[in-house]
Amino acid sequence: MLKLYYAADTCSLATHIVLEEAGADYSIVRIDFSTGQQRSPGYLAVNPKGRVPALITDRGTLTETPAMLVFVAQSFPAARLAPFDDAFAFAEIQAFNSYLCSTLHVAHAHRMRGHRWADDEAAIAAMQRKVPQSVGACYELIERDLLKGPWVMGEHYTICDPYLFTLAQWLEQDGVDPNRIPRVVDHRRRVSERAAVRKAIAEELA
Amino acid sequence: MLKLYYAADTCSLATHIVLEEAGADYSIVRIDFSTGQQRSPGYLAVNPKGRVPALITDRGTLTETPAMLVFVAQSFPAARLAPFDDAFAFAEIQAFNSYLCSTLHVAHAHRMRGHRWADDEAAIAAMQRKVPQSVGACYELIERDLLKGPWVMGEHYTICDPYLFTLAQWLEQDGVDPNRIPRVVDHRRRVSERAAVRKAIAEELA
Repeated sequence: MLKLYYAADTCSLATHIVLEEAGADYSIVRIDFSTGQQRSPGYLAVNPKGRVPALITDRGTLTETPAMLVFVAQSFPAARLAPFDDAFAFAEIQAFNSYLCSTLHVAHAHRMRGHRWADDEAAIAAMQRKVPQSVGACYELIERDLLKGPWVMGEHYTICDPYLFTLAQWLEQDGVDPNRIPRVVDHRRRVSERAAVRKAIAEELA
Repeated sequence: MLKLYYAADTCSLATHIVLEEAGADYSIVRIDFSTGQQRSPGYLAVNPKGRVPALITDRGTLTETPAMLVFVAQSFPAARLAPFDDAFAFAEIQAFNSYLCSTLHVAHAHRMRGHRWADDEAAIAAMQRKVPQSVGACYELIERDLLKGPWVMGEHYTICDPYLFTLAQWLEQDGVDPNRIPRVVDHRRRVSERAAVRKAIAEELA
C-alpha cells in the first residue's frame, strides 16, 4: 500500500488527489509544519529534503510532485491520467507540470519562504512585494498560452489538472487579481467539483 | 528533424547532450542573451516564456528541460537513457531531474537573475550573498543522498547525468567549495570525457 506524507495547504494535495482519482489503495500521514515537524529527525529519515510530499512505495520513497504524479498515473493505467504511449503528448504534460514546479510554485514561495534565498529581513520583504507580479505573470502565461480547455491538456483530464488546481488555491493570497485570469479560475472551480478532489480535501481537513 | 534553441552557458546544454547521446538527427539555433534575443518578438513566437531551451518537433514546440530530456529518451529508445517500463525507476529519474530544475537551478538563478523575484537592488545583492549556502546545500544533498555512483542512478548512464553535469559547470562561480562534494566533482569529470558531451560543447563554442 502507498503511504503519502502531506502537510495541510501545501502542494502535497496534488498527489493526494491523483491517488484518489487513480483508485489507489493508500494512506496519508500528516506532517505538522507549525511545529517544524518536517525538520524532525524522524521525518528527515523519511525524506532528507525536509519537505512534503513524500510517497512511500514497496520499492522505496519518492519525492518531487511531478515525479510522484507520473508514478501514480503509470502505476494505475486504467485511470488514464497521462498518455505514456505518445511521447509528445506526455512531454506536454511534463512541461506543464515542470513549469508549475519550477516557475509558478517558486514565485509563490517567495511570499512565505524567502529565507531560502536571503537572510536579510528587508530583502525578504522585497521578495514578498514582487509576488503579485511574478506569480501573476505565470498565471497570465497559463491563461493565454498553456491551458487548452476545458482541462489543461484539452478534452482529457490528466495529472496536470489537480496540480494546477492545488497551486491555484493560493492565487488570491499571492495578490493576483482573479478577474485577469478567468479561464484559470473557471478551471479551478470545475476541478473543485470532482468527487476525488472533494474527498482528498475532506481527508486533509479531518 | 528536431531543432534545439539554445544559449551558451545555460541549461540547454543538457538537452543538447542528450540529443547527441541518443543519436538524434537535430540542428541547433543559438539565441544571444547578451542582446536580449530571448525577449525578441521572433523568439517569443517560438517560446512565449522567453527562455531557453525550446525544442521544435514535427508535432510542435516543447520547453522545460525535464520534459525535453524524457521526450528525447522516449523517442530514441535504443539509447536506453531512461527506463520507461519500470514506474519506480523512472520516477527516481524524474525526481532527481525535478530537484535539479526546481531547487538547485532555482537557487543558482538567485545569483544572476534576482530581478525575477525582487526589484530592489539591495535585495538582489542579499540574494546573491546567500547563493553559496543555498546552492551548496543542494550539492551536499546530492553528494550524500542522491548520487548513487558511478552514474546518478547507479550502473546505468541516464538523462540525469548530463543534466547534473550541466548545472555543475557553475558550482565554483556560485561559491561552492568543490572539496566538500568530491563525488559530484568526480561525476562531472567523467561525464565531461564522453564523446557526446565533448561534441555538444564543441558545437556550442563553434
